Amino acid sequence: MSRSVIGAPKLELDTPALCLDVEVVQANIQRMANFCGRASVHARPHAKTHKSPMIAQMQLAAGAIGITCAKLGEAEVMAAAGIRDILIANQIVGPAKIARLVNLAGYSDVMVAVEDAANAADLSAAAQAAGVRLRALIEINIGMNRCGTAPGQPTLDLALRMADLPGLRFEGVMGYEGHTVMLPDPQLRRDKTEESLKLLTDTADLLRSRGLPVGIVSSGGTGTHFITGVHPGITELQVGSYATMDSQYRETVGIDFAYGLTVLATVISTREDCAVCDAGLKTLTRDFGLPKVLAPAGWEMTGLSEEHGQMRRLDGPPLRRGDKVELVPNHGCTTINLHDEYHVIRRGVLAAVWPIAARGKVY
Amino acid sequence: MSRSVIGAPKLELDTPALCLDVEVVQANIQRMANFCGRASVHARPHAKTHKSPMIAQMQLAAGAIGITCAKLGEAEVMAAAGIRDILIANQIVGPAKIARLVNLAGYSDVMVAVEDAANAADLSAAAQAAGVRLRALIEINIGMNRCGTAPGQPTLDLALRMADLPGLRFEGVMGYEGHTVMLPDPQLRRDKTEESLKLLTDTADLLRSRGLPVGIVSSGGTGTHFITGVHPGITELQVGSYATMDSQYRETVGIDFAYGLTVLATVISTREDCAVCDAGLKTLTRDFGLPKVLAPAGWEMTGLSEEHGQMRRLDGPPLRRGDKVELVPNHGCTTINLHDEYHVIRRGVLAAVWPIAARGKVY
Repeated sequence: MSRSVIGAPKLELDTPALCLDVEVVQANIQRMANFCGRASVHARPHAKTHKSPMIAQMQLAAGAIGITCAKLGEAEVMAAAGIRDILIANQIVGPAKIARLVNLAGYSDVMVAVEDAANAADLSAAAQAAGVRLRALIEINIGMNRCGTAPGQPTLDLALRMADLPGLRFEGVMGYEGHTVMLPDPQLRRDKTEESLKLLTDTADLLRSRGLPVGIVSSGGTGTHFITGVHPGITELQVGSYATMDSQYRETVGIDFAYGLTVLATVISTREDCAVCDAGLKTLTRDFGLPKVLAPAGWEMTGLSEEHGQMRRLDGPPLRRGDKVELVPNHGCTTINLHDEYHVIRRGVLAAVWPIAARGKVY
Repeated sequence: MSRSVIGAPKLELDTPALCLDVEVVQANIQRMANFCGRASVHARPHAKTHKSPMIAQMQLAAGAIGITCAKLGEAEVMAAAGIRDILIANQIVGPAKIARLVNLAGYSDVMVAVEDAANAADLSAAAQAAGVRLRALIEINIGMNRCGTAPGQPTLDLALRMADLPGLRFEGVMGYEGHTVMLPDPQLRRDKTEESLKLLTDTADLLRSRGLPVGIVSSGGTGTHFITGVHPGITELQVGSYATMDSQYRETVGIDFAYGLTVLATVISTREDCAVCDAGLKTLTRDFGLPKVLAPAGWEMTGLSEEHGQMRRLDGPPLRRGDKVELVPNHGCTTINLHDEYHVIRRGVLAAVWPIAARGKVY
């Protein structure tokens, strides 16, 4: 349900409005595709950022091998939109979830991350009972210390067991250098990323030396794509934020993809050199800091309460009640998750409204 | 769309699941109603917390005079559910929003906060054109320094102008002691709250001395209700969080309403004395800190990433992959805003699934 008429100028949209500049997003997608082509690595973009089958289809059209999801609920949305090759880069645990996963495997080529032999056996048994063969990767802990097997022998032990399970098709390994993707120091980021990736690729080689097929070695985020994408032995990148971008990745981490995602807001109150706009914590997140004020220049955000964004004038023009401001989310993934729809902007006017179909699909 | 069968035991729900213990919520609502009865103050509960017409109706049935909303979009949802007396405790600015507001006034008794004479004139003109008379309060800045007129003469000046506007019906004044509601020190909270409320009630008296009718003097949050509710001259309380509660108000601020809102999650990974569950920042917010682990006892949360919650064992029982854990949101208002539905629990089983109808209605 649109609140605005197609063809309306962006600055006339009712606010707050999550805006997607589709030409910028398309250019970001093409640029990452070009990088992957040069690096001879596959892109498997992470849909947890955009949560939109439409943007996923743009990524596939630009050459992505498939997509990545964080949750089964997201994967169900993407599969229902006709996308077949989906990696759920997460553990699927418990009978209810496993039943949904093998059901999904009946109408897509879904692939799941595994870190535990008992879970692998449960997955295999459910897949067999449903008459499907479930694709599986081992998730290796390469330093983030969240999920995953220890590199080396423990991963080999699990892989050997998985290779024998009739309901699974062992496809390879994945990691995620989540502890390095946002390191502001470029050299430190490079060193720590390469150290982590070596754990992943060395383990892949160990598995191959024991005769196991390791077709997929997947890792990487937007902050490390240019390191991970050229690392020998990495076959796929799970990049997510690059398509829409956010101020954390651009301003703090120094990744220069362009801003395709903004929030348009309205000034509802002013006092001296301060203004209050109608976008607060239910519109924008502050996981890593406050949003950036894109327009007008010369203003900064100073706070977000639930429904109010507080701004302070630096050297910008005065703002009056009713003026529009444009903000860049600090963290795209969680900000997009607050909204039901994208206001798709093409050359300054509202071109479409796209549902954020996988929003809230955390289950 | 429920993911679980009505009648299922809570611990069998697919996760993460936002759970509402309806008997606890009902008891919280009755307890606040009893307090308001004893204090001879009206309750106008803030629906920005629960975002549910169902819970709003429970509050009205317990004697609330009406409800409060933060945004026009929320008020539209509540009015569509048949609720008539709605205060939008916020500025409504710009032609698109004002057109929606006067439309809403055609099928509800909506009331709006005003801080500016030009905005008041715009509202009046639109109301006149639509053939309605719009109820309006002046929002006074009583120390939070966000929105609102200065107390005293500036508020009187605006009130005199508003009283002359044919499209408006001047109803009174409101404030919000948002800068005091979470002060952990009870005496400091009381002192600062009373200091703020005096600005509000003194200004109300000033307006009355000039012949203006000030029927409504509205303020208050869950953290100050027992101070604000008995303050001479306050007629209405805008309490929100008390109905569902959260760990910030209970553990940090010391408000002893009971936890009616929890998130059920599943352990997906374990390592030594740590566990990872399937509830992250897309399921729970950390506006004021991390969520509380309600069950099992003897565990605490140590971090939230997008889709993972990290937990550490203190002196609790070991957790295994697949075990369920129950978490209390740190901030109910923003956590509820992440979810599409409540899993309504009565005596341990799923009794209903209620849409969180005003979720995301930030516009």
